[in-house]
Amino acid sequence: MNATGTRTVEAAPPPAVDWDGSDPVEVRRRIRSGAHRGQTGGLARGYVQANLVVLPAAYADEFARFCQRNPKPCPLLAMSEPGRPHLPELARDLDLRTDLPSYRVYRDGEAKGDVASIGDLWQSDFVAFALGCSFSFEEALVDAGLTVRHWNDGGVCPMYLTDIECAPAGRFRSRMVVSMRPFPPADAIKAVQITSRYPRVHGAPVHLGMPERIGIADIERAWEGDDPVIAPGELPVFWACGVTPQVALRAARPPIAVTHTPAHMLVTDVRNASLAVG
Amino acid sequence: MNATGTRTVEAAPPPAVDWDGSDPVEVRRRIRSGAHRGQTGGLARGYVQANLVVLPAAYADEFARFCQRNPKPCPLLAMSEPGRPHLPELARDLDLRTDLPSYRVYRDGEAKGDVASIGDLWQSDFVAFALGCSFSFEEALVDAGLTVRHWNDGGVCPMYLTDIECAPAGRFRSRMVVSMRPFPPADAIKAVQITSRYPRVHGAPVHLGMPERIGIADIERAWEGDDPVIAPGELPVFWACGVTPQVALRAARPPIAVTHTPAHMLVTDVRNASLAVG
Repeated sequence: MNATGTRTVEAAPPPAVDWDGSDPVEVRRRIRSGAHRGQTGGLARGYVQANLVVLPAAYADEFARFCQRNPKPCPLLAMSEPGRPHLPELARDLDLRTDLPSYRVYRDGEAKGDVASIGDLWQSDFVAFALGCSFSFEEALVDAGLTVRHWNDGGVCPMYLTDIECAPAGRFRSRMVVSMRPFPPADAIKAVQITSRYPRVHGAPVHLGMPERIGIADIERAWEGDDPVIAPGELPVFWACGVTPQVALRAARPPIAVTHTPAHMLVTDVRNASLAVG
Repeated sequence: MNATGTRTVEAAPPPAVDWDGSDPVEVRRRIRSGAHRGQTGGLARGYVQANLVVLPAAYADEFARFCQRNPKPCPLLAMSEPGRPHLPELARDLDLRTDLPSYRVYRDGEAKGDVASIGDLWQSDFVAFALGCSFSFEEALVDAGLTVRHWNDGGVCPMYLTDIECAPAGRFRSRMVVSMRPFPPADAIKAVQITSRYPRVHGAPVHLGMPERIGIADIERAWEGDDPVIAPGELPVFWACGVTPQVALRAARPPIAVTHTPAHMLVTDVRNASLAVG
């Protein structure tokens, strides 16, 4: 609560920056210059942040099909021309080689470390994919007055590997990874209503209650992220998660691939609210 | 399954009529003439059926406020002019005194029996209210491929009196009555999405899972309707129910009031699909 008694909406996680991080163009400029290397949560609030996947062209068509067939874990916001490190529909001045604060490099499907730019790794056959991210729908939930616990805790949302098989495409295959947010039942219903309006950022939940029904043996232990806190009277609500394509990447084993480092996202000029349907 | 292997969508409950019950004007004509005295479920499929509440004018303003303040259990579709037994926005030829197959008469808030018409009871100060009914959203659920169990069983949906207090208005007050339909979690999510589009017929669920959290001590025993069948892997999903105003009627104790007899609804010329928002 602030001094006037109204609830303050917090960004997740609040970034420790001593500059005005509200403008996405300024955020990318600082990242590009090396002045910001941290997480992007809480920066450019109101604007879409995206998952990045970069693949050689020989894998790009298969991955595009994987996204098309699995739009809930892999909602494709934009796809680059081969060799062109730009996604003009997301930001006019964007250079994908320098404008994310940290990149994760994969060789033969295995993560081999993080780098601050990929200018020296860029190949003329690279195709970049930007996928919607839960930050957008979490912002819509918070704006509607719902409490997203891990925003308030400053933690990372718990994620689980389920037994839900994604539709395979070529060498890409994965079980679905889900993120979990606990809500009282009435808020769980509101969360379904709100996130249904955002199919391009994972959309409605895929499951709620009954974690064992989607192959989660122990809800108390997260597969990735922080272990959950579920209060009495709360239901676990599960959304398809953008970590799913990273699992598919391990299966496909391309000689090289690049993603964002978790929580170090592609900041775009597209407003979250503009993605709403209905 | 029918002979071609596709699933047959059934109306609830299928009426035993030997005439074409698809036209709402014909349905009302047969009811008016006394040729049909049975339930209305399954008749005039695709058209809105409504709950009826008729009250003396001295109670009408308070009841209108009760509906306005509690739109989920009491979604007000139409309200008559005092003394006029017509609701032209629902049907041009409608006579509320004769066009329902059965009416329930209340004296001082207590049900005193059912009658086939209310022509001799009608008062010059009567005001009629038509409230949305779950038949409309159940049809939308079935049309979307979901299984509404009590349709298939030919039974009556289980209802429960909760500890959720409706907002009172004058002499009208009630705890909320809810109806319950069980669904697997993924279908429960779809049911939230679908019924959210129909706020004028109860709209989205008010609760799911955790019946004890809304004061339902024993989910196995319905307060009204048939006891439920909840299969393993199904969640109970609860909607605000149109029986709630009948409880409020008992509290208000008007000297006389009339409702439809349960399952013997007001058949209108308004298409269910026309109520959809978004």
